[in-house]
Amino acid sequence: MGKQYTRLDKDNAAVLLVDHQAGLLSLVRDIDPDKFKNNVLALADLAKYFNLPTILTTSFETGPNGPLVPELKEMFPDAPYIARPGQINAWDNEDFVKAVKATGKKQLIIAGVVTEVCVAFPALSALEEDFEVFIVTDASGTFNAMTRDAAWDRMTSAGAQLMTWFGTACELHRDWRNDIEGLGALFSNHIPDYRNLITSYSTLTEGK
Amino acid sequence: MGKQYTRLDKDNAAVLLVDHQAGLLSLVRDIDPDKFKNNVLALADLAKYFNLPTILTTSFETGPNGPLVPELKEMFPDAPYIARPGQINAWDNEDFVKAVKATGKKQLIIAGVVTEVCVAFPALSALEEDFEVFIVTDASGTFNAMTRDAAWDRMTSAGAQLMTWFGTACELHRDWRNDIEGLGALFSNHIPDYRNLITSYSTLTEGK
Amino acid sequence: MGKQYTRLDKDNAAVLLVDHQAGLLSLVRDIDPDKFKNNVLALADLAKYFNLPTILTTSFETGPNGPLVPELKEMFPDAPYIARPGQINAWDNEDFVKAVKATGKKQLIIAGVVTEVCVAFPALSALEEDFEVFIVTDASGTFNAMTRDAAWDRMTSAGAQLMTWFGTACELHRDWRNDIEGLGALFSNHIPDYRNLITSYSTLTEGK
Amino acid sequence: MGKQYTRLDKDNAAVLLVDHQAGLLSLVRDIDPDKFKNNVLALADLAKYFNLPTILTTSFETGPNGPLVPELKEMFPDAPYIARPGQINAWDNEDFVKAVKATGKKQLIIAGVVTEVCVAFPALSALEEDFEVFIVTDASGTFNAMTRDAAWDRMTSAGAQLMTWFGTACELHRDWRNDIEGLGALFSNHIPDYRNLITSYSTLTEGK
Amino acid sequence: MGKQYTRLDKDNAAVLLVDHQAGLLSLVRDIDPDKFKNNVLALADLAKYFNLPTILTTSFETGPNGPLVPELKEMFPDAPYIARPGQINAWDNEDFVKAVKATGKKQLIIAGVVTEVCVAFPALSALEEDFEVFIVTDASGTFNAMTRDAAWDRMTSAGAQLMTWFGTACELHRDWRNDIEGLGALFSNHIPDYRNLITSYSTLTEGK
Amino acid sequence: MGKQYTRLDKDNAAVLLVDHQAGLLSLVRDIDPDKFKNNVLALADLAKYFNLPTILTTSFETGPNGPLVPELKEMFPDAPYIARPGQINAWDNEDFVKAVKATGKKQLIIAGVVTEVCVAFPALSALEEDFEVFIVTDASGTFNAMTRDAAWDRMTSAGAQLMTWFGTACELHRDWRNDIEGLGALFSNHIPDYRNLITSYSTLTEGK
Amino acid sequence: MGKQYTRLDKDNAAVLLVDHQAGLLSLVRDIDPDKFKNNVLALADLAKYFNLPTILTTSFETGPNGPLVPELKEMFPDAPYIARPGQINAWDNEDFVKAVKATGKKQLIIAGVVTEVCVAFPALSALEEDFEVFIVTDASGTFNAMTRDAAWDRMTSAGAQLMTWFGTACELHRDWRNDIEGLGALFSNHIPDYRNLITSYSTLTEGK
Amino acid sequence: MGKQYTRLDKDNAAVLLVDHQAGLLSLVRDIDPDKFKNNVLALADLAKYFNLPTILTTSFETGPNGPLVPELKEMFPDAPYIARPGQINAWDNEDFVKAVKATGKKQLIIAGVVTEVCVAFPALSALEEDFEVFIVTDASGTFNAMTRDAAWDRMTSAGAQLMTWFGTACELHRDWRNDIEGLGALFSNHIPDYRNLITSYSTLTEGK
Repeated sequence: MGKQYTRLDKDNAAVLLVDHQAGLLSLVRDIDPDKFKNNVLALADLAKYFNLPTILTTSFETGPNGPLVPELKEMFPDAPYIARPGQINAWDNEDFVKAVKATGKKQLIIAGVVTEVCVAFPALSALEEDFEVFIVTDASGTFNAMTRDAAWDRMTSAGAQLMTWFGTACELHRDWRNDIEGLGALFSNHIPDYRNLITSYSTLTEGK
Repeated sequence: MGKQYTRLDKDNAAVLLVDHQAGLLSLVRDIDPDKFKNNVLALADLAKYFNLPTILTTSFETGPNGPLVPELKEMFPDAPYIARPGQINAWDNEDFVKAVKATGKKQLIIAGVVTEVCVAFPALSALEEDFEVFIVTDASGTFNAMTRDAAWDRMTSAGAQLMTWFGTACELHRDWRNDIEGLGALFSNHIPDYRNLITSYSTLTEGK
Repeated sequence: MGKQYTRLDKDNAAVLLVDHQAGLLSLVRDIDPDKFKNNVLALADLAKYFNLPTILTTSFETGPNGPLVPELKEMFPDAPYIARPGQINAWDNEDFVKAVKATGKKQLIIAGVVTEVCVAFPALSALEEDFEVFIVTDASGTFNAMTRDAAWDRMTSAGAQLMTWFGTACELHRDWRNDIEGLGALFSNHIPDYRNLITSYSTLTEGK
Repeated sequence: MGKQYTRLDKDNAAVLLVDHQAGLLSLVRDIDPDKFKNNVLALADLAKYFNLPTILTTSFETGPNGPLVPELKEMFPDAPYIARPGQINAWDNEDFVKAVKATGKKQLIIAGVVTEVCVAFPALSALEEDFEVFIVTDASGTFNAMTRDAAWDRMTSAGAQLMTWFGTACELHRDWRNDIEGLGALFSNHIPDYRNLITSYSTLTEGK
Repeated sequence: MGKQYTRLDKDNAAVLLVDHQAGLLSLVRDIDPDKFKNNVLALADLAKYFNLPTILTTSFETGPNGPLVPELKEMFPDAPYIARPGQINAWDNEDFVKAVKATGKKQLIIAGVVTEVCVAFPALSALEEDFEVFIVTDASGTFNAMTRDAAWDRMTSAGAQLMTWFGTACELHRDWRNDIEGLGALFSNHIPDYRNLITSYSTLTEGK
Repeated sequence: MGKQYTRLDKDNAAVLLVDHQAGLLSLVRDIDPDKFKNNVLALADLAKYFNLPTILTTSFETGPNGPLVPELKEMFPDAPYIARPGQINAWDNEDFVKAVKATGKKQLIIAGVVTEVCVAFPALSALEEDFEVFIVTDASGTFNAMTRDAAWDRMTSAGAQLMTWFGTACELHRDWRNDIEGLGALFSNHIPDYRNLITSYSTLTEGK
Repeated sequence: MGKQYTRLDKDNAAVLLVDHQAGLLSLVRDIDPDKFKNNVLALADLAKYFNLPTILTTSFETGPNGPLVPELKEMFPDAPYIARPGQINAWDNEDFVKAVKATGKKQLIIAGVVTEVCVAFPALSALEEDFEVFIVTDASGTFNAMTRDAAWDRMTSAGAQLMTWFGTACELHRDWRNDIEGLGALFSNHIPDYRNLITSYSTLTEGK
Repeated sequence: MGKQYTRLDKDNAAVLLVDHQAGLLSLVRDIDPDKFKNNVLALADLAKYFNLPTILTTSFETGPNGPLVPELKEMFPDAPYIARPGQINAWDNEDFVKAVKATGKKQLIIAGVVTEVCVAFPALSALEEDFEVFIVTDASGTFNAMTRDAAWDRMTSAGAQLMTWFGTACELHRDWRNDIEGLGALFSNHIPDYRNLITSYSTLTEGK
């Protein structure tokens, strides 16, 4: 028998944004800052777009790690927001786990800074408790490509699936006909090449 | 007992070319355009050369994604051609799956744009239904090397085998003696270094 | 005697944006699309911020090169806009040169797509007519790093100065005290690392 | 049932530093020397900070391989120090294995030079004897990225977990509240970006 | 006074293709073979398209260097073809210089293999005799990027201008209106991204 | 119970050198030619040094693929040498398999050109027949890093172990005391950094 | 007549450290942080070692740019320290220029963050006033390699000489015999490879 | 009038090999060690082949810098050998300059370790005294590509010409007919791709 395809289901998925804090972002050097900022906002936009329950958490935000990136705070004013008093692995924080379980979802879409700690630790904990874990690799950042590769290896060995924000959006959406304009806007706002295609296309077809 | 070597068999393999569309190709940045164009055409040539049943499919081809690359259309005028009305995963389209199953083949050679969506989704679906899946990595493209690596990880974890067009051709052919000239022409047309070897060789041996 | 420092002067500079068209942008592969889009918009923002006369021009915009990027059109609704009927070197178009000369400025800040043609050709022409030419390298794009290097070599040999949008802004502004908030906003909007510094700083100092 | 998360436990872990010798370090070319030196010292510092039993070993230190890096010798004056008379795999040396077992720990944190030999061989041996093995990838070095990738593949296939010194410190510490200053100092001394965050933060908050 | 812009003039330019031989091409490693082959053929196509006098030359073609790439031979059946008996610098061969001078052109467009020898030597010789020299950098290849950079430095110090085949075509053509279809075909055949733009554009506008 | 460490044993290992032919070597572009030549000769030297049964095979050596690299032929004058008449997978050639089995060894050390074909195919076949397979990654070459990564993935999924020539030598030797001079010479001849260590060391200690 | 060699003279050189501030350092991405920190401290150490007059300056240090890196402040407690109130080009600040001229030196060794602004602007200004300008490239940082290359081009066109901290130290020292131990310590502290050479050397020769 | 082509002349050139010492070579990280070793030996071979007067010099060879690479010593047993007692710039050593001038040559071919010091300093000094200076870039090494680029910039600004060992050999030889076998052997020994061409060629033509 073939291996079961565990695919993202918008009715069964939650998003965990872990430690995207103004100070910690200066540690991220495996992705260019312009691209990384874009990827994180794209993930946030897709969470909103698909109405996925989203949980924000920070580590020591009153210290040098700095506050959560303000755009995220503004986009999810009503989301559970767990400012952890000290736990490095968000899963070691009871409120965080409660918030996750309160969503009632079995699929966790995780991104954060830095990959081998803030992403990998809760991912491994969640897998242990039978969640299906999807890592948004390009909305997660770390010191360099080598530390990223090591982190990926550890997570995939434990059963996590590596995604990108684009793949996540596509797998959740399933069919363009569910909403062409909405998905098109998401892509247009976060993929310059795609925006250009739309620009050329619209110009040629408008008034047709 | 050793692990069984699942190798490509030209009597049991079909080729799926997924979403090689003029617009989508501008998204491909993990492979240089000259090389990528060459790789896609090489895969098409080998599909023809080995008479493999080939299936073409596109996503939203009347919109910004653009039409199928014309060379592919011309090379496979009689191939099943499924212009999907909206399904992102080609395997979610009944006509596509029907066309695949109608070939009666158990081995699927898949390439497409972009790797983590148009290739990975149907690959995972096909594996779930017990097909043997071979990804032609160098005829598949995506946003950057990082998103490619993530896509590869997901597919290999599920049991897909990563190939190149060259490896695919060699595994299908098995023995040069089946047709030296045919395989040589395929290589000469798509591997400049190999063409140079042939040029030098022919010049020196002609008239010998 | 030392060599004279030809520095940008906001009262004597004009900006030329050459062929940033939706189609042509798909040719740009020496800079990542997220970063390139940001750089072009940053240059446009600084042109606005410093009230520099700005000239837009396109090549064959009704054909496959595609329309000007809409953001640029919207930001400069009253700027001279020269849709060239065929001249590849914008300087070969009389209207363009007239528009440039009508600004009465001696310093030209040039960016465009692709670097070795749409940027280099008018740059070399302008240098010949004694303009001081400043290339905004990171808001100009081309096929790959090798073609960029060749283009830079040709332009610097002719006397052009290579700038970045950030260096251009700093040289025009001269002194933060001229307007701290304005320049800060420009940087915050286009340099994620700088925005993070501001976020952390503001959080710590607000209410102090 | 989910996969068990084997996480580092400071009461059950020992550190093995294998062949960080002055001569052998000239072979390391997959990591820049400034960064590599920093990573090795960071690992040593964390071993000290968490009071982990640490074992030093060298290969042929009186020959061209050269003496152990003096900083390591100084930091662990009382650690077992096994100058192997010839065994390439440290695990083939009885004294070394005895020293490891004498720690009574089940988790081994291993780093060394070069990765595919001095790290991989004892790692594979230890896994065979049911130890839990954690490789500190960025404090281990080898000839180039390709040989590193091959070494990683071999070790992860056998069950080793790939870590970084930063991830190791975080997983051992669990909660900042256990000692904010101590962990902060470790990071400040070995992560320049983090030190900068602390500098800016302290300056703004001192006297507040 | 500004610096004079020495621009290519299709009535005053000749093309020199130096040592693009099947054997020597295996030495080229600073450009990927697929791209290099494309660039060389693009340069040949543009030479034909603009009817530029073209001169072919080879070094020791009956030995291991191998024969001229057959495509070039076929494209220029009537071009002067100087199979040099031994001179490494083509300019040291009287027949070659005679052929160059017989064109009556003052602008020499040079490409060849390898850059620091077969291109640089005749380029420096031609500059000494007051020719205007334009190097087609991307149709010239060598051992690696470092040797290329050194060769470029030497040539630009002597006054050569660094071009690409695309820039060369654009500077020669001057105005699209001279022949839209011809130039469009040249680009479509050698720039996959441009071909895609044309494909999408044509599909959308045909029948409009 | 821990995972068994399958380690190379000099009494139970044979070396297969597959298709290191003068023509095919021009296809190898994932490793620099100087380094690749060195790695292949290092592997040959170690095969000799450890007296491992070694088998040479070529594909179509009278055609453009060219003859076996002469150094290999000279080093193993008495080794089985199978010039395959057409089989692409060496394992499809009965003589080759017979020669392998005649060695009576269970461990196969394989290297060749190109990795995804000449190495991967016989590796997969051998694994199927319960051989233990060790790939010498750095003495195997292919078109580029991407095709190499795909080939590695396929082989490790099937159970092959990825080695380097240096790791192979170390694992076979076990203990320097078995022969310091011999192993030292092997390293000195093929690792310039190691040779330098020995040079400095010998100079300082001679006459001591 | 040959070109005069303008070489650094320890009796005629001053060091300018421009804007090495905790916040601004997070913008530096063309050099790895570990290496960059080391380079800046190496330059500071050499300035101290050669007793060169050193001038510190910062831009807006009470805002998000952050305070001067504390190590620099501590190393030069008595150096002129100009906290510029707003001038972006340090040379636009009278106190800074006065401090420079008060040193009575004609050679200026400049490093700073970011290269195209904080380094390039005062460098160009100083060249205009006939100073000899030496840029310590590896103790200066900026957004990426492309912006660095553009900055270098601008500075060298104006006559600046590009140095590294190591080259600067060597050119100032002239002869090891002036002080072997001092220079050796500088290198040992900032070049790990050199420290290893010394470690091996000392171990072998001590007690000889 | 065109710019004079200063080309290497085997009757007027000398080779200076500066500080290729066993210890210092561990500092070279801008070129891979296998390739660098090959390049240095290739340069030495060509010096011998063309009978160019060659001068060897070392810096502090009895200290950690280590002895001259033994191969060089053996190849030039009768060459002037200046073990400098302390001067960093070889040109500051009278014996060295005397040896250079004793050759009576005006063209100096220089290579050494590290580029920005041991090569650049004597190069700049020699240019000042009207020598024609040719840098063999690929037989010179330094810490990384950035420090190399800075060194190149400084030397070319002063009038040095950047060469490679291959370009040097070709420019000295002028015409293959002067000695086909000799030059062919030089290339075959140091360019693996060229050796392969010769192998294939010889095999096909022998007995013809």
